[in-house]
Amino acid sequence: TKKLSIIAGPCQLESRAHAFEMASALKEICQKAGVGLIYKSSFDKANRTSANAKRGMGLKESLPIFAAIREELGLPVLTDIHEREQCAPVAEAVDVLQIPAFLCRQTDLLIAAAETGKAINIKKGQFLAPWDMKNVLAKVTGAGNPNVLACERGASFGYNTLVSDMRALPIMAGFGSPVVFDATHSVQQPGGQGASTGGDRTMVPYLARAAVAVGVAAVFMEVHQDPDHAPSDGPNMLKLKDFPGLLDELLAIDAIVKK
Amino acid sequence: TKKLSIIAGPCQLESRAHAFEMASALKEICQKAGVGLIYKSSFDKANRTSANAKRGMGLKESLPIFAAIREELGLPVLTDIHEREQCAPVAEAVDVLQIPAFLCRQTDLLIAAAETGKAINIKKGQFLAPWDMKNVLAKVTGAGNPNVLACERGASFGYNTLVSDMRALPIMAGFGSPVVFDATHSVQQPGGQGASTGGDRTMVPYLARAAVAVGVAAVFMEVHQDPDHAPSDGPNMLKLKDFPGLLDELLAIDAIVKK
Amino acid sequence: TKKLSIIAGPCQLESRAHAFEMASALKEICQKAGVGLIYKSSFDKANRTSANAKRGMGLKESLPIFAAIREELGLPVLTDIHEREQCAPVAEAVDVLQIPAFLCRQTDLLIAAAETGKAINIKKGQFLAPWDMKNVLAKVTGAGNPNVLACERGASFGYNTLVSDMRALPIMAGFGSPVVFDATHSVQQPGGQGASTGGDRTMVPYLARAAVAVGVAAVFMEVHQDPDHAPSDGPNMLKLKDFPGLLDELLAIDAIVKK
Amino acid sequence: TKKLSIIAGPCQLESRAHAFEMASALKEICQKAGVGLIYKSSFDKANRTSANAKRGMGLKESLPIFAAIREELGLPVLTDIHEREQCAPVAEAVDVLQIPAFLCRQTDLLIAAAETGKAINIKKGQFLAPWDMKNVLAKVTGAGNPNVLACERGASFGYNTLVSDMRALPIMAGFGSPVVFDATHSVQQPGGQGASTGGDRTMVPYLARAAVAVGVAAVFMEVHQDPDHAPSDGPNMLKLKDFPGLLDELLAIDAIVKK
Repeated sequence: TKKLSIIAGPCQLESRAHAFEMASALKEICQKAGVGLIYKSSFDKANRTSANAKRGMGLKESLPIFAAIREELGLPVLTDIHEREQCAPVAEAVDVLQIPAFLCRQTDLLIAAAETGKAINIKKGQFLAPWDMKNVLAKVTGAGNPNVLACERGASFGYNTLVSDMRALPIMAGFGSPVVFDATHSVQQPGGQGASTGGDRTMVPYLARAAVAVGVAAVFMEVHQDPDHAPSDGPNMLKLKDFPGLLDELLAIDAIVKK
Repeated sequence: TKKLSIIAGPCQLESRAHAFEMASALKEICQKAGVGLIYKSSFDKANRTSANAKRGMGLKESLPIFAAIREELGLPVLTDIHEREQCAPVAEAVDVLQIPAFLCRQTDLLIAAAETGKAINIKKGQFLAPWDMKNVLAKVTGAGNPNVLACERGASFGYNTLVSDMRALPIMAGFGSPVVFDATHSVQQPGGQGASTGGDRTMVPYLARAAVAVGVAAVFMEVHQDPDHAPSDGPNMLKLKDFPGLLDELLAIDAIVKK
Repeated sequence: TKKLSIIAGPCQLESRAHAFEMASALKEICQKAGVGLIYKSSFDKANRTSANAKRGMGLKESLPIFAAIREELGLPVLTDIHEREQCAPVAEAVDVLQIPAFLCRQTDLLIAAAETGKAINIKKGQFLAPWDMKNVLAKVTGAGNPNVLACERGASFGYNTLVSDMRALPIMAGFGSPVVFDATHSVQQPGGQGASTGGDRTMVPYLARAAVAVGVAAVFMEVHQDPDHAPSDGPNMLKLKDFPGLLDELLAIDAIVKK
Repeated sequence: TKKLSIIAGPCQLESRAHAFEMASALKEICQKAGVGLIYKSSFDKANRTSANAKRGMGLKESLPIFAAIREELGLPVLTDIHEREQCAPVAEAVDVLQIPAFLCRQTDLLIAAAETGKAINIKKGQFLAPWDMKNVLAKVTGAGNPNVLACERGASFGYNTLVSDMRALPIMAGFGSPVVFDATHSVQQPGGQGASTGGDRTMVPYLARAAVAVGVAAVFMEVHQDPDHAPSDGPNMLKLKDFPGLLDELLAIDAIVKK
């Protein structure tokens, strides 16, 4: 089995300077640890809790920055798309297209993403059983793109709460695609702050370690140098300064489990 | 308080002839019972469990049929939209645009729908708390369209199961918009048949009566003359022959509760 | 089908005077409405959230009061038992023995209760599916006592929250025993106040009406003249002054549904 | 932090010979691995799904066998108690009294167990939030017994399903007592086989590794040489032959996490 990879970056693209600062820092940490990194950032937050929340820099301004990170830092880039028309242009600038959890059943979006030929990371809907991802993955592979990943990010558990069912990881692995565990969205409290989504960042290391001990291809973590002042996902993003220590633990556990 | 209304029709538009047959039958039943009817049908099932499931007749062929039902039968028509671009053309042909549950947080879709000026029926996401609909409704009213309805269709309860929390109805009513109870999707078992969604139609009358006893503006029910051979939602659609009896019970309960 | 009955009373026995005051008031209201009443009160709260919470008057002091209510007011009495040894002595003083939800799988307690020959009201565990009550009811009937009731009081839904699945009522009715809906415990928020259980009394009328519209043999409601100063279940008990109005609504709905 | 301990044994005491065979085998494996073992077995299954299921050997026949295992094999023994009166006699024969999950809120049982002075392992109710264990633990410590453990065994997640919320482990550890993860009951499907409880033993290693990666004082696992023919908990017990390999993995992960 292949060694653990990391998908990391700030929730949303804030500026070219911020993106390069974060991507460089993450690259250095991952290189030192000898682990593969995919840089993650969103150009648009299309489903915020409230219409008043910050949406991001938008597609046009963001794509050149993604392209620059790939070229200048040599990092593969992942971003999420929300509408069919975005798939082709975004695929020009990034390596992995991500399907948001709420949209994981939208057949046309999945097929348009698949047809770009890029790798597709599908977040499992909060309303979906792990075994139901079989049909979701088949929408992409059935469109001729075998390069698809299944990502666990928590299941609805009562109101305003997600629970991470660790059994979902081996169940989804049984469908043949690499499995990713999203350790920072899994600790969200959706809508938990009234007009925005809450979260509990202190739980990230526990869930990340648990998922790696179960066995995953990659861990997805939103990381920020100052999450408490980030425009989105502040309560659940990991602090950059806490990333290296957690990474070491994850790699040590990964080595045991994949022995 | 206004008397109960009914939103009813087959899950998907199957043909012009079938649509007229169903709409005429439902119109006659509702007229006899003295209750307002909005005819419901989908032109596209954009989020089927499997990519192999039937999608529907499509936008182009469907809009003239919707328009004909409005003109020839005098019935208001409701249909669901899935992408921003669909809002304006569909609004030409129908009276109510419906936002699917999985898409209830997609800000751009909500705003594009709002801007048509038509009534908007928002299905509450299976992953959403009732109080979180406040922000969802505000995305529509904030775009200048006060004509919005909140629709309960079940909340995620473990895997492949929905539960209807009757408390959601008064909670959502507290936000000032009419509340609709979707009695047939609430009995779905999402993904419960492996490659398709299951359901238990025998529970529809119980949940519909319960919701009306709590107090709602409208009940939404998918009705079909032969659900076991319908192209979608067969297990949970109500049989046309069972509709008149249920309607009488609902109206009697409604009269007591709104006295 | 038989007309709706009511099981009502304050959560715990507070004093002889209070019990007679409450029982008399409830009796008068139910007589006026022409509905059967079983008086409910607990002699011991054996599973409070915290060890510091008030437990009640205890078995010895309570049994004579129960007996007096039966004799002097002519009301049947229901109380809950927690240990095998309590069944026989309590059965001397009351008409219905109630099995608490947490204890609904304790075989010996069920059998000891069954062997008294009294009617047994079993609260469905918050952790139990409605269809699992079949085995629970069979523990009592298998011990030779056919006089058993199944009572819905909410299912666990995430943390500190219960949800009332109205489908549970017809499912349990299918096992042949009368079904009771507990409208006041169903709105509890278990452990929701840190060292005690919260609740939302404003939801009681909605859930009670919903359950009666589904169809039940009886509604169970804890009622108190001043719930905010009651020693237990204050947040979820119904105010005595709100009982007559709700009762009228329930009876009107019951009449429609059982026509 | 102290190294991981193991609580293991067959679900129920089947015979003296079987108990010695299992206890000897487990002792040898744990000694070789250098890990502390507490032998677990039940003398009575007091809350089986159905009244027809096998209950066990009973208190009188079992206590001498427990005592013999302690003396002859030098193993500490854990067993579960169901009624107040059992606490004192059982405490004579074993080292740890266990409170079943359904009974974790029964104040009198907790206090009677506490007063024996033995260690008390409390299974967290399937209906309880992790933070609610604070009050439960306080019922034991408040009775003067500080020697109490909190054990996670899954939370209700829809019907007939449990989910293991790994966040429960650090939350409960915050109350100061050692935390145990029960890896075999966590994979139960309560009532999932109609008249008995189902389970999925293949998930045990995943959940056990996850819990150890989060960080726990002990893992609890029911182990049997032939679970498919065991009188209870067959579907979820671990096969004895799979225990040594899993134990090695758990110890390696434990060493990393507690470094």
